[in-house]
Amino acid sequence: MPSRPRDADPLLGDLSEGEILRAILSRTARGSHTLLGPGDDAAVVAAPSGSVVATTDTLVHGPDFRLAWSSGYDLGWKAAAVNLADIAAMGARPTALLVALAIPRDLRLSFVERLADGFREACAALAPGCAVVGGDLTVSDVLTVAVTALGDLEGRAPVTRAGARVGDVIAVAGELGHAAHGLSVLFGRFRETGTGVPLPVDVSALGSGESAALQAQLRPSPPIGLGAFAATAGATAMMDVSDGLALDARRMAAASEVTIALDAATLGDDPLRALAGGEDHALLAAFPPGMLPSGFRPIGEVRARGDHDLLVDDAPVDVSGWDPYRDWDSTAG
Amino acid sequence: MPSRPRDADPLLGDLSEGEILRAILSRTARGSHTLLGPGDDAAVVAAPSGSVVATTDTLVHGPDFRLAWSSGYDLGWKAAAVNLADIAAMGARPTALLVALAIPRDLRLSFVERLADGFREACAALAPGCAVVGGDLTVSDVLTVAVTALGDLEGRAPVTRAGARVGDVIAVAGELGHAAHGLSVLFGRFRETGTGVPLPVDVSALGSGESAALQAQLRPSPPIGLGAFAATAGATAMMDVSDGLALDARRMAAASEVTIALDAATLGDDPLRALAGGEDHALLAAFPPGMLPSGFRPIGEVRARGDHDLLVDDAPVDVSGWDPYRDWDSTAG
Repeated sequence: MPSRPRDADPLLGDLSEGEILRAILSRTARGSHTLLGPGDDAAVVAAPSGSVVATTDTLVHGPDFRLAWSSGYDLGWKAAAVNLADIAAMGARPTALLVALAIPRDLRLSFVERLADGFREACAALAPGCAVVGGDLTVSDVLTVAVTALGDLEGRAPVTRAGARVGDVIAVAGELGHAAHGLSVLFGRFRETGTGVPLPVDVSALGSGESAALQAQLRPSPPIGLGAFAATAGATAMMDVSDGLALDARRMAAASEVTIALDAATLGDDPLRALAGGEDHALLAAFPPGMLPSGFRPIGEVRARGDHDLLVDDAPVDVSGWDPYRDWDSTAG
Repeated sequence: MPSRPRDADPLLGDLSEGEILRAILSRTARGSHTLLGPGDDAAVVAAPSGSVVATTDTLVHGPDFRLAWSSGYDLGWKAAAVNLADIAAMGARPTALLVALAIPRDLRLSFVERLADGFREACAALAPGCAVVGGDLTVSDVLTVAVTALGDLEGRAPVTRAGARVGDVIAVAGELGHAAHGLSVLFGRFRETGTGVPLPVDVSALGSGESAALQAQLRPSPPIGLGAFAATAGATAMMDVSDGLALDARRMAAASEVTIALDAATLGDDPLRALAGGEDHALLAAFPPGMLPSGFRPIGEVRARGDHDLLVDDAPVDVSGWDPYRDWDSTAG
């Protein structure tokens, strides 16, 4: 058998699964809840309060990200962040991530190394103590990152979408509409005219607002720690805003059998973008009056169920969010 | 907007994410460990012994299965089974599955309905009490099923690969080489001559041994319950045989810093197939002498570490298993 050519940054197709896994695992940190880390058939994670919160969310090349726009680091960071936000939205503390990678063989080793760095640093920045405890690696023509996040409720009851009560204050922690702004910058400024093919991002061409929006889209930083804090402070309902405030507030209203009434003046310079824009993963929560904790700002109130799930300035709104099955067209580039 | 054409079995691309999810969720059962099931940001699963065992494994169309050969039901069943086996191999009892689906829009609703049926029935048959508690749905040109399984150790220590001790008996529960035999039937009998394109399976063309092998490949039934049983019985090391007995026994030997010596006469009619064939997800375990529990059959012994990780009939063997990065060629059909 000919010896493999030496290459400082080999193609994944020239490596074995074991070689790729070793490169990834050398970049994972040990979490404070990790009882048994990567390398066996399964990991073991502490669940001190006798239950575990679990969620899964996947990023697929095309509908969810483009390699022309996202680095491996960006992708690892974002895949961690969106899953951590779902754990936080239950009022739990994230304890562990499991990462299933399906990767084309024409990517290079440095890509997955930076991906692992993104996971590690997102955990360190957003959810200290949480770490990647396991994963899976397989080959696919479509780069796919499926993450499962685990969390601990620290003895509290989970905060669902269904607990909002008439008279509660509706509040939010984190950004609204920034990630969508970032996406519009990418679609508007960094695609080939005519074909729509994504082009590499030239950061020097961006204003500071656009740079911040791009950061919110590529490396979102939801306020993960505020999830457990809100639960302790008495949140009656909570969820993360992944598909846009309007759509997600409607979901909370429907689950809680109430009407949610928002005040457009609290939604920043561009209320429509705040209502429609997804992917910021802000925390949307309901609190009893007078119990709003630090980090959350009021944006509305809970009313008895009326004809509409959602009102903005007392009027029904028709703002829809993102639906991959309806909205994504792989032929459109 | 024109109304959607009515179709008894619509294309996924003509449905919203919510409609597809409702069809899937109506087919999930509630598990005995489920504290909060699907529908919120995350699920909550009981972890009565204060820790949770967690693993993830992905099936990708192409390297892991073909739609010409696997039904939706087969795919759901297999995706459940391979993950349940990893939980069992730690000596744990499976409690919950999370299922991330990336599905092309040109598949039909009935496909994901049958996929959900496969998950539900595999849990009922192989790991009663375990159930799908959450999931994620996104669109992709490559059908990808990423599953995370959770389990409970019921107060026991996890059984890793690293605990085999000199003098232990090496034993196995479940089939060896049957799934590989099934794969060879598919590749040998149900592909178009010349192009290699997979053809639908004609069951009537198969003998009974071939049918059983096909079943082992498409709907494996590893002995999940024997994992916790083996741990209780004192197993010192355990893993599931996913990549072939030779490769996986070598991994156990390396982790335990011992040599594993197998007896070919215990490996059935086709010892080479038993050594090389992956995907049966049998349980490979080490037990102190005289402590072999029911359901496990002896196939060798643990010796002090020598020049080789693995011996068969006292000789080194050169049998390799499956490596997706080296062995899968998407152009070969």
